[in-house]
Amino acid sequence: MADETPFPWPPAADRIAIEHVWPEVDCGATPVKRIIGDTVEVFADIFCDGHDVIAAALLYRKADEEGWRHAPMRPRDNDRWSGSFTVTETGRYVFTIEAWRDPFASWLKEVKVKQAAGRDLTLETIEGVEIARAAVGLAQGPEAVDLSQLLTAVQAAHADQHLAMLLDPANAELIGRWGERLDLTRFAGERTVVVERPKARFSAWYELFPRSAANDGQRHGTFDDVIARLPYVRDLGFDVLYFPPIHPIGTTNRKGRNNSLTAAPDDVGSVYAIGSPEGGHDAVHPQLGTIADFRRLVAAARDHGLEIALDFAIQCSPDHPWIKQHPEWFDWRPDGSLKHAENPPKKYEDIVNVDFYGHGQISLWQALRDVVLFWVEQGVTIFRVDNPHTKPLPFWRWFIAEVNGRHPDVIFLSEAFTRPKMMRALAKVGFQQSYTYFTWRNTKAELTTYMRELTSGDMAECYRPNFFVNTPDINPYYLQSSGRPGFVVRATLAATLSSSWGLYSGFELCEAAPLPGREEYLDSEKYELRARDWDAPGNIRDHIRKLNLARRDNRALQDFRNILVLNAWNDQVLAYARITPARDNAVMVLANLDPHNRQECDYEVPLWEFGLPDDAAIDAEDLIFGGRFTLHGKVHRIALDPAHNPVVVWRLVPPAEARP
Amino acid sequence: MADETPFPWPPAADRIAIEHVWPEVDCGATPVKRIIGDTVEVFADIFCDGHDVIAAALLYRKADEEGWRHAPMRPRDNDRWSGSFTVTETGRYVFTIEAWRDPFASWLKEVKVKQAAGRDLTLETIEGVEIARAAVGLAQGPEAVDLSQLLTAVQAAHADQHLAMLLDPANAELIGRWGERLDLTRFAGERTVVVERPKARFSAWYELFPRSAANDGQRHGTFDDVIARLPYVRDLGFDVLYFPPIHPIGTTNRKGRNNSLTAAPDDVGSVYAIGSPEGGHDAVHPQLGTIADFRRLVAAARDHGLEIALDFAIQCSPDHPWIKQHPEWFDWRPDGSLKHAENPPKKYEDIVNVDFYGHGQISLWQALRDVVLFWVEQGVTIFRVDNPHTKPLPFWRWFIAEVNGRHPDVIFLSEAFTRPKMMRALAKVGFQQSYTYFTWRNTKAELTTYMRELTSGDMAECYRPNFFVNTPDINPYYLQSSGRPGFVVRATLAATLSSSWGLYSGFELCEAAPLPGREEYLDSEKYELRARDWDAPGNIRDHIRKLNLARRDNRALQDFRNILVLNAWNDQVLAYARITPARDNAVMVLANLDPHNRQECDYEVPLWEFGLPDDAAIDAEDLIFGGRFTLHGKVHRIALDPAHNPVVVWRLVPPAEARP
Repeated sequence: MADETPFPWPPAADRIAIEHVWPEVDCGATPVKRIIGDTVEVFADIFCDGHDVIAAALLYRKADEEGWRHAPMRPRDNDRWSGSFTVTETGRYVFTIEAWRDPFASWLKEVKVKQAAGRDLTLETIEGVEIARAAVGLAQGPEAVDLSQLLTAVQAAHADQHLAMLLDPANAELIGRWGERLDLTRFAGERTVVVERPKARFSAWYELFPRSAANDGQRHGTFDDVIARLPYVRDLGFDVLYFPPIHPIGTTNRKGRNNSLTAAPDDVGSVYAIGSPEGGHDAVHPQLGTIADFRRLVAAARDHGLEIALDFAIQCSPDHPWIKQHPEWFDWRPDGSLKHAENPPKKYEDIVNVDFYGHGQISLWQALRDVVLFWVEQGVTIFRVDNPHTKPLPFWRWFIAEVNGRHPDVIFLSEAFTRPKMMRALAKVGFQQSYTYFTWRNTKAELTTYMRELTSGDMAECYRPNFFVNTPDINPYYLQSSGRPGFVVRATLAATLSSSWGLYSGFELCEAAPLPGREEYLDSEKYELRARDWDAPGNIRDHIRKLNLARRDNRALQDFRNILVLNAWNDQVLAYARITPARDNAVMVLANLDPHNRQECDYEVPLWEFGLPDDAAIDAEDLIFGGRFTLHGKVHRIALDPAHNPVVVWRLVPPAEARP
Repeated sequence: MADETPFPWPPAADRIAIEHVWPEVDCGATPVKRIIGDTVEVFADIFCDGHDVIAAALLYRKADEEGWRHAPMRPRDNDRWSGSFTVTETGRYVFTIEAWRDPFASWLKEVKVKQAAGRDLTLETIEGVEIARAAVGLAQGPEAVDLSQLLTAVQAAHADQHLAMLLDPANAELIGRWGERLDLTRFAGERTVVVERPKARFSAWYELFPRSAANDGQRHGTFDDVIARLPYVRDLGFDVLYFPPIHPIGTTNRKGRNNSLTAAPDDVGSVYAIGSPEGGHDAVHPQLGTIADFRRLVAAARDHGLEIALDFAIQCSPDHPWIKQHPEWFDWRPDGSLKHAENPPKKYEDIVNVDFYGHGQISLWQALRDVVLFWVEQGVTIFRVDNPHTKPLPFWRWFIAEVNGRHPDVIFLSEAFTRPKMMRALAKVGFQQSYTYFTWRNTKAELTTYMRELTSGDMAECYRPNFFVNTPDINPYYLQSSGRPGFVVRATLAATLSSSWGLYSGFELCEAAPLPGREEYLDSEKYELRARDWDAPGNIRDHIRKLNLARRDNRALQDFRNILVLNAWNDQVLAYARITPARDNAVMVLANLDPHNRQECDYEVPLWEFGLPDDAAIDAEDLIFGGRFTLHGKVHRIALDPAHNPVVVWRLVPPAEARP
């Protein structure tokens, strides 16, 4: 005979089922992400045997607080309950759920049914008084006195009066508030919410090479040249200014123009070949200036409302000081050489990688952390991390916890263009933002499917997309042949589909000349200094300025999870709205994905989202072309002409009485 | 400054991500269910930083075994891996997953690419020999000698020969088998599989009231009368014979015919009002016979290939001996009375419930367990449990573990018709089978949606549906007006959509007379003895016999998860196939859901499932009408006439060369 199965103990501690808690990622092993000011909506299936009334509460606290705070949960539909709390500080919150049987509410429900059926309630009344008596023993504070007086009054009254006294709404509410919580059941687990500053979710990035800031192909730019560019960037409406690496560059195997394997004597080399006798990851390229100059740049940027983002690229040119100082950080080959880096199909002959699990592991990891802490000391609070998917996940989990433990406001953007699950895993270990497949999602079906993927399930909870329209590494095929309309469309999509977006300088000039047949730029700035005519005809600076202004003025564009794809009966026209959960701000976009042809179609205005009937009117403010007009009815027709209006971006303003 | 985040330790123990393991329910807190002989397919996302080759294994064992057994896992698509093991015994199995970097496989991959590119491989060769040397230290058994000899031979050979020796297929396989497993990572958790006997999933139930077995409205049936009915039931092809309660019936508040509140002197009362001075749950109604008679019946049934299923209904008539012997098992009202049972909207004035959490909790729970153990001693191995959703989930978890710990072959069927999440929760705590909403799913959309719900996600892993076409409590509205064709259709759907199905006697005679406007039977057998003409014209005994025969002969019908809904261009025609995973057995059904009109439509034969082109031919054996014919091509037309062929059930026999 088998051993006896132990009795559940304490009795009934798990009588109420609390299942399928949401939000959660990896059964709670991975935190979900929010920003300051968010309301965290929590859902769970909660139910119990029998027909008694149950109640539930959401328990939450900052992870380092002692006691739980409580928020009520309410049943929604089909045993699904929800409750919420608002997060007001950076750091970790935890939450769990409690549920219990509510004997007084059960009693009330039963009594009301029986009263309506004209049944005798003598026994029920006696039972009700007993429930009230138990509440007296549990009440605290001033209401304990009220409740005690109520019970005294009931006992003093004739039995005929007892039921009416218990059912009196004020009395019933008082008893209910302090009544016993029977079979109190706690969800077996806590869930963690990481709360970060708003820029972790809402940001607009502009990328430039400081060494090109002189805007002179012959003269190496300086940090002062970048300071002179700040008004330009700010005028476009960006709030993050991101630089590829600014460190000394090695000379061994230095790359020439267009990634050639032999550099000419005056070639500047790839900024990613970090390190020379002049210093490594904590030094600046001498031709850019000094650390003091850099600090001046950071301060000047801040005065313009711009935060500087640096590139964190864990790799070394063969001339990096670490290679001699810390040979234990590298994996040497039998002939005393180091293997150069690869990220298939790309090859990087001018750089080598560190060995994360060599016998110098601990000092290496600490040194890498200290590099970032050094730049934080210089005022940098955002880092774009190069190729994180080629470094171990446990390293990133440790590293981000180390940095954010000291500086919770530091934001890391994961530059991984690799397989989807690795990209998601990097977000799970803590990266605040992530690059995406956006540059390769061009058709309506591709964009719709991708937005669904990014805004549902695990992804919506832990992965914050940053839609870059181009990068120094990606000259998208679509833009190579689209001409100016394509740039307008892609900027609009990036800026209004995602709450974070970015571009690499030159995009605003519709630069697209490729290495033939490749997704790379011709004469890439990765390997040479560049000068540009920033006022060149056909530039889209004004459009970008209006997009960023629309983003700043409309909270609906400051989250990425609130997309609503709309019917537009033309496969070349993508229509969508972004609407705040409170329905108090809404932006609608129609984009012609075909940069070569005028596309016309019927489309739907989402009147239903505001509780409006199909024949209602709604105002629209044109955020690009200006003006305000009224749309009457749900279905309209539009023509989007690449030459004039490849996109429209409207704020929807429902009649005041329609807002929920 | 915050505390330092501890280094991951041991280093790289979690370097490889192992995520989204499947199957699992409630993050592993709830076991998944299988039957003996099943192959358990396990899936996980497995990936690592960088580009090295990784490998993975599924680790599994019986829960009470010491060491893990290993099965290989293989990558399928997009970092999803799978592996499998077969379960051969009842009880609990556990599994987990390990993954590691495979340095020799990575080396092989790199060398082959570089060899093809004509690169110098001197250094790679030296590195390969080092990897092989590490394998020598790890090898065990006879291959340790082979590997050691290989290394000696390599070292004795000229360096020019080393690469060829390592790449020799037999040598490479040998080294690979014993190579180091770097960064070995174990999934953080184990998952449990409960394995039960095949009847837990595949069964056909026939329900009758033993007291009606005399087939004489005036004479109370006996167990011997039931023995006389066994050939009839067996002839219909059923393998479980289920009885509503067979215990003494109380007289207090005894129900009269048609659930009336006053019983006539000769009324037999409801079988669910269990208990009288003659005994309670471990006694038999004196008019049925004795325990010895019952044991003879169990044995006789077994001789006919039938298992007896009893009803386990935890409730007492006011005359049950427990009420006097164990007042501590009941919740007494202030006047010394007990509240009668309710399951809204149903009322049961003739029964009272026990109190699961009163101060007699432990002795009550043990007594309830002992009731079932008593009947197991009498040879009963299947129990249908009445209204389990009105009893606490922790009780059932304890109770089923207690019984199955002693008798793993005992099967419990949950008779809960309540909200979906409670029904699923009962399956999670251990019920081997569950009643369903089938009786209320009549249209094509309803049936299709419901089958998707039952066969996907958590439900497919833990909830085994039993499709009853009727019960003494449910006289479905559909059947009240459908006439004979509706009975044929519903029996066919139940028997071929679900691997377990059942009927309550009378169904085969197309009985449907209702209490007017109610889903109840007129003159319900719950309250009176019934006699029937078992050979009445229009009965569907022959059809039922053929359905059960088809189920026995076709393994595709012995699981419920393998449904494939087929295109049939008529909303009244439901078409589907059931196909074994190995594609070696397939049954196809077309059912006219409209019992009143001939319905005609085109439909598709699932040629693609057998790798056949759209113009291929496939044979079909008619399992109802007999005969064999060939279907040429994918699309066909059929007319289903309620009078002649409301359904067709065909075995599909693809050409021998088509089978995968």
